[in-house]
Formats: sequence, structure tokens, C-alpha cells
Amino acid sequence: MSEPIDDFYAVIPAGGIGSRLWPLSRAESPKFLHDLTGAGASLLRMTWDRLLPLTGTDRIAVVTGRAHGPKVEEDLPDVDLNNVFMEMDPRDSSAAIGLAAAILERRHPGVVIGSFAADHVIKRQRVFEFTVRQAVAAAREGYIATIGIQPSEPAVGFGYIKTGDELIIDDAPMAALVERFVEKPDLATAREYFADRSYLWNAGMFISRADVILDELKANEPELHAGLMEIADAWDTASRDEVVERVWPTLKKIAIDYAVAEPAAEKGRLAVIPGQFDWDDVGDFASLWTLVGDGRREGVTTLGSNQDVLDDNATALVVSETDRVIAMIGVENIIVVDTPDALLVTTSEHAQRVKQTVSSLQNKGRDSVL
Amino acid sequence: MSEPIDDFYAVIPAGGIGSRLWPLSRAESPKFLHDLTGAGASLLRMTWDRLLPLTGTDRIAVVTGRAHGPKVEEDLPDVDLNNVFMEMDPRDSSAAIGLAAAILERRHPGVVIGSFAADHVIKRQRVFEFTVRQAVAAAREGYIATIGIQPSEPAVGFGYIKTGDELIIDDAPMAALVERFVEKPDLATAREYFADRSYLWNAGMFISRADVILDELKANEPELHAGLMEIADAWDTASRDEVVERVWPTLKKIAIDYAVAEPAAEKGRLAVIPGQFDWDDVGDFASLWTLVGDGRREGVTTLGSNQDVLDDNATALVVSETDRVIAMIGVENIIVVDTPDALLVTTSEHAQRVKQTVSSLQNKGRDSVL
Repeated sequence: MSEPIDDFYAVIPAGGIGSRLWPLSRAESPKFLHDLTGAGASLLRMTWDRLLPLTGTDRIAVVTGRAHGPKVEEDLPDVDLNNVFMEMDPRDSSAAIGLAAAILERRHPGVVIGSFAADHVIKRQRVFEFTVRQAVAAAREGYIATIGIQPSEPAVGFGYIKTGDELIIDDAPMAALVERFVEKPDLATAREYFADRSYLWNAGMFISRADVILDELKANEPELHAGLMEIADAWDTASRDEVVERVWPTLKKIAIDYAVAEPAAEKGRLAVIPGQFDWDDVGDFASLWTLVGDGRREGVTTLGSNQDVLDDNATALVVSETDRVIAMIGVENIIVVDTPDALLVTTSEHAQRVKQTVSSLQNKGRDSVL
Repeated sequence: MSEPIDDFYAVIPAGGIGSRLWPLSRAESPKFLHDLTGAGASLLRMTWDRLLPLTGTDRIAVVTGRAHGPKVEEDLPDVDLNNVFMEMDPRDSSAAIGLAAAILERRHPGVVIGSFAADHVIKRQRVFEFTVRQAVAAAREGYIATIGIQPSEPAVGFGYIKTGDELIIDDAPMAALVERFVEKPDLATAREYFADRSYLWNAGMFISRADVILDELKANEPELHAGLMEIADAWDTASRDEVVERVWPTLKKIAIDYAVAEPAAEKGRLAVIPGQFDWDDVGDFASLWTLVGDGRREGVTTLGSNQDVLDDNATALVVSETDRVIAMIGVENIIVVDTPDALLVTTSEHAQRVKQTVSSLQNKGRDSVL
């Protein structure tokens, strides 16, 4: 194994609940804390393990909500508690990553940071590491580097990155400029992108010098930047709580794609490294089924603590966290998610609609099951 | 309303678990104790209420297992406890109905009895009563009378009765001889039967003088008859328990169709009255869905104590006895049965296969969920 990268911090934003994975994912039990793949570890823990060879234990930071802090610390027993940054409430990815950038830049001027979602699944560790090392090399040249995933199908569920001119950077042989970002396409457009190998999936991974990302934020969202800097100045002092309580609620909620990445791309400051590893954001139960079934949907695939499932000519994904016996008879392409207080039955075609059901439950004030 | 019929006892065999309705029906909670139709009463209670105008409260007998006795008595608060005949263990319908016939013939020589399953659903009460009164009139003439249901579709799930020559019996204008019984047909044969109006469904309702049914049993199954007579002789005496414990376990298990009805038909002693009321044996969840949906399967039909079901473009039957929220998203023709310790997911085409699942659980020794 190669050594950790000098002066490089990984930042794991662990915030999203993953409401398309309801009723498994909950406000109290978000997606990243679940062992969704049956690997014996949570998605967060797998993200930690994946980053460890690049950083060592003392250079991984986690940004998470106060409500999830204790569970995150339990899930990552080796984490340096100074590197767990608790958000007062969720304020989108610019605030989360910006907070980490500002604190880490104060502590370690010139540091390079990379943000990696807590709830994605990646296979082919060596390729992942090779790609991140290239992104860090590009970051050291002053670029904000993103990792674009080589598409494996004409997906309509992701945004795309159009690769532009090649960049000549030592230790980053595959780096190129980002020509532009593209929103989620329709199927015809997605097929064009898939045929044209210069379009990559935007997986939301950004690697940059902390000061570079903060400068970009300052240029595009000056109030947000100022608020984050004020919090970072106070973070490692006795006045942290007072400043956070006062400033955090005023911060604008905006995705880092809009506040940093797209403006940087327009200025020619965004580099992309194609990621030729297997990547999945486990966006809904249909993609989870594909993931754990290695693309095949045959028989009954079971996930969760309860494996007591009888299969009589069924094709189904059964995720159960109860202690019930479950009989699946003759159903085709059915997804069942069985928890103590909520049951979901849907199909892979309709798995995206789970989000609307969660909204509907929210509108009805059914918070106890959300 | 007309008066109860003189010297007529209704016998309700309440024995079958109804394993095609698992996991709702259980050894401890058989089909007949469930309010399957959402009417606010169990199938047993509805059977009782249906027979009451023909008998009065003191002339309905129930034959049930010892395990279910207390629940039956709770469900039928007006039942005469002398008329609840507890079986030591289940020994099929000849033993159950034969026991009732033997006890009632001892108590009331010459009595007419009619057996009516505890777990069928009948609509059109006046037509039902009219039909039973005709069957009793035929029984008084020495016939064993059955009620054959006018088919509403070419069903393959029932046996058929071929109607023969008309019988001339006062007060039984629709009576005819049974030419023969036919086992469950294939679909092509069922279609022939359906087109030929002389074929009726065998609903297992038999009305006869008790002594006539016992004589038929004596001719065909002399040992079974002798055992039942020995038990009946002892029933209303202090030696009941001793005799039951000794004799009941020796009784042959045989359906009354084979021990009584078919042999009687061959001898020209079986009459049939066509029943032109709506009848359903609620054989599985598919027929339950048809029944409660009045034949239409649209949207989500809910049954059971839990009605907390969210429907997003689903077509489903949801039977729930838990307190969970259930989300049905985009599924078509799906049956979900949700109980505290077991969950069934199937389709109406596969609802008959539930019985095999129950067998499979039995073979695995999973009695706690059966």
C-alpha cells in the first residue's frame, strides 16, 4: 500500500436522510448509517474505510447534524472528535463543505480537502485511490478538481459533466478541464451522452485547496462566505457555541454545485478526473436491488437483519428489520421494505415515487414514522 | 318473518383453519372467527345470525375443537352450551356431523338436522331461508337433501352436483334427485357445466333426518358409525369424557361427501335444491378480494383493524392487523396480508398457493406462526 497523501484532508458530509429509501431511512436513522449492501458496515463506515489509506485516521473530518453526532461517533470509533463538525441544522452542501474548508484552512493553511458523500457505494478501491491522488495533484495546481464517473448506462437520474481540453499536470495524467455542467437529461439526451465518451456523471466529489474553494465561495456568495469565516474563527475557541447559534441560522441554503462548481467551470478553474471505478449513489430501492444483485433481478434478494423470507416463484427485493416471517408468492419485480412501524410495497419502476409518499406523510404531520 | 321450523336443528361444523387465508387464519385463530368481510361480525357469527330465523337460539349446535371452544362461546353469547359439541381433535366432516346427528337423534328422535359451514358467506337471506325450508321438506320425506349453488362462473375450485329427475314433494317445488357428484373439473369441463344449467356447485350443505344420515353412515362406514353411537350414548352422562377419550381417537377420518352423500346419491336417496342466493366459500384472498370489492378490483381495498394505508396508483388488497403505516406505490394486482408475526405478499393468481407455503412452514416446524 502507498502512504497517505501529505496535507490532505477528506471531508465526509453526512447529512442527507435519503428519503427515497424510506421507511428504512428515517430522520433518526439516515441512509448513511445503514448497512445497505449487507457488507457488515454502514455506508458511512465504508466511506471512512475507503478514505483511510489516503489520509490516515487523523485527517478525516465528518460534517453532520447534531442529532446524528453520537451515532456517527459510535460508527467511527477512530475518528478524532475535533474533526466531527456538528451542524446546528441542515443548510445544504455549500454550508457543510464550506464550514469544513474554513475550519481546516484556519488549522492548516494551504491544506487540500476532498469531499466525499457518506452514502455512496464504490468498488475497485485501487482505482479510486489512483483517481483521488490525481485530483489532489490537480488541486495543488490551484484547480478545483472533481471526479466524474464513467457512465455505465444512459442514466437520467444524474447530472453530467462535459469534459473539455486536456490538462498537462504532473501526477494527474487523466486530468482535463470541465467544459460545463449539464442538468439531469431526458432519455434521448442521456443516450447521446452515453455514446459520446466525453460526458461523465457528476458524483459531487470535489477536491481543492481549502483557500481556493473559499475564494470561489467569496466571489459568488459573499454573505455565506463571511458567515462561515466568522464561525471558523470562533470554532476552536470558547465562543464557538455563541457564534454558531447566532450566525449558522442566517446562512444561505445552496448546493455547492451552484455556489462553487459551476461558476468555477465557467472561469476555467474546474478540472475533472474520470473515475473508472464502480460507483453507485444508491438513490432508491431499485438501484439498491441492482447493486446488491450485481445487476440481475432473479428470485428473492434479502437485505436487513431479518432473513426469514419464504420464496415461492417470486422476483423481489425484501428489506426487513422486523422479526416476522415473510412469504413472497408468485410476485414479480416487487420491492418490500418491512420495518416495525411502516411497510412499503412497490416496484422498481415506482421506487423513485417513495419520495412523494414521504412528502405526503410530512404534509399529514406523520413525523413519528418519518 | 316466518316462524322457526319445528323439530329442525342447524349444525355448524366450525373446524377448518382455512390455511389458504394464512397468515390471517391460524391454528389459534381460524378463518371462521374472523370478520373477513368487514361486516363487523365473524363468519361464524354471521352463520349463526343467518340460521336463527330458521331455528331459534336453542336449536343451533356447533361442533368445534376443544381449543376453539371458549372463543366460539364468546362469539355466540346466546348459544346453549349443551349444544356446543367439542371435538377432542379434528377427525374430518363425517365424525363432526355424525357426532352431532347421533347426539341430537338421542335427544330428539326423528329430528331433522342441517349442516352449514361456519366460514361461508351468503347474501340474499330470504332466498336462503326459502331454500332451506324446501330442503327440510325433502328431508321429512326421507331424503338426504343438499343445496346446490347455481354457478355464477365456470369455477374449477368446486365440485359439482349433476341434477337428475325432478322430485314431487310438497313444500319443495324445486327439489330434484342428484344424479351424481363430480370432482373439481378442468376449465373446459367447467365451461360445459356452466353452459348446462343442470350442474350446481357442491357447497357441502346437507339437510336430513338424523336417523337417515346415521343409517347411511352405518351402511358405508360401520365402525365409524358404531364409535359415534357409543360416544352419543355416553354424551349426556357422567361417562362422556371417559368414552370420548377412548373412542374418538379411533374414528376414521373421512369427508361426509364420501361416507354419506355419494353412496346415497347412487341409491337415489339424495335430493338437491338449487340455491339461487349469492354464496362464497372465501377460499383464498383472491376470492375475498372479489367478494369485498363486489367483483371489481380497483384501487386499494383495505380489510382488518388497520386502515392506515397510503395508496399511490396501486391496485391491491391490504389486510392488516398491525398498527403500521402501509404505503402501496404503483403495484398492480397485489395482495398484502400484514400481521404482527407474519407478512404475506402475493397476487390474486397465486393466492391458492398460500396453502403450500403453510405446508412448507409446517414441514420446517414453524408452528408458532401457523
